[in-house]
Amino acid sequence: MPQKSVYLAGPEVFLPNAREIQDLKIALTREAGLVPVAPGDLEFPKTDSKWELGLAISRIDEFLMNSADAIIANLTPFHGIAADTGTCFELGFMCAQGKPAFAYTNVKADFGARTRAHHNGEWYVDADGRPRGPNHIMIEDLGFADNLMLHGGVLNRGGVFVVGDAPAGAELTDLTAFKQVLAAAAEQLG
Amino acid sequence: MPQKSVYLAGPEVFLPNAREIQDLKIALTREAGLVPVAPGDLEFPKTDSKWELGLAISRIDEFLMNSADAIIANLTPFHGIAADTGTCFELGFMCAQGKPAFAYTNVKADFGARTRAHHNGEWYVDADGRPRGPNHIMIEDLGFADNLMLHGGVLNRGGVFVVGDAPAGAELTDLTAFKQVLAAAAEQLG
Repeated sequence: MPQKSVYLAGPEVFLPNAREIQDLKIALTREAGLVPVAPGDLEFPKTDSKWELGLAISRIDEFLMNSADAIIANLTPFHGIAADTGTCFELGFMCAQGKPAFAYTNVKADFGARTRAHHNGEWYVDADGRPRGPNHIMIEDLGFADNLMLHGGVLNRGGVFVVGDAPAGAELTDLTAFKQVLAAAAEQLG
Repeated sequence: MPQKSVYLAGPEVFLPNAREIQDLKIALTREAGLVPVAPGDLEFPKTDSKWELGLAISRIDEFLMNSADAIIANLTPFHGIAADTGTCFELGFMCAQGKPAFAYTNVKADFGARTRAHHNGEWYVDADGRPRGPNHIMIEDLGFADNLMLHGGVLNRGGVFVVGDAPAGAELTDLTAFKQVLAAAAEQLG
């Protein structure tokens, strides 16, 4: 049976050492017996504007996802309290195709805890029992790592979601949780 | 020809007046000649825990998306500088099914401008010409409303993306941009 391929989604493409981190994830994926598919695998075309470049990268990444058998999404919070929005799009994209979906985060505090911290700990419970911030917006506090569509999308189709606990400052570079979810993916897909 | 249905994705489900805003969007969608499909259309099952409730809502919302012909996603920034992560998942989900995708935001400042503001205006251009924040993370500055997978996913499949400019404080409730993108969706789908 040919080896299964897995799309490696995550915000590491924005890091100063993006290539290094991506190459580490690619090498680990190969070692695990899976074929890595990653943003940046294909060269970007020459374009006349940043706008056209962005549209071209979107097309290329969709092409790469269509070619892959599964996804491992890095949902570690990215410049804010929630996951990288591009990675969320990609997780939904692969889930809709019925492909096995795996995810991880390097931050232990769940979405509810992070949202309460975003409100500096100010929150209340409304008459219906729903937690709300000082702006009266509901705090999603279900124990999930991020919005329920992400965590639920992975678990409801039998995937594995690893919640890591990277050292402060290493949230976007630590690969401990990635290695754990990769091992689970290799076992399911192998 | 039967009327086309459209899934109404967005963070308004978390607002204190969620039902009111959703009912307004549902009524406008009907007036435009489309069949609204919205989170909350189906009753949630009784569950033993918040965790099980979240998984059930995820399944229901995926079921509703599978039933819909198209999506209109509200990508207005939500507790932070980027769109609601659940809505991003849903936009990717519908794009992967080849369904017409439409989106809007109520905030005029683009993703690059919002990210620079998040860094309090501190940023620099690296040796390769890439803008980076003080944490050296790349600022995605392509003119898009959010991550390129979202804006690109809509435009690359012929959808319309409306960038609105709601009054301060009405970013999550104003329906001006929604009405504009709804009209465009009705014309394409009608």
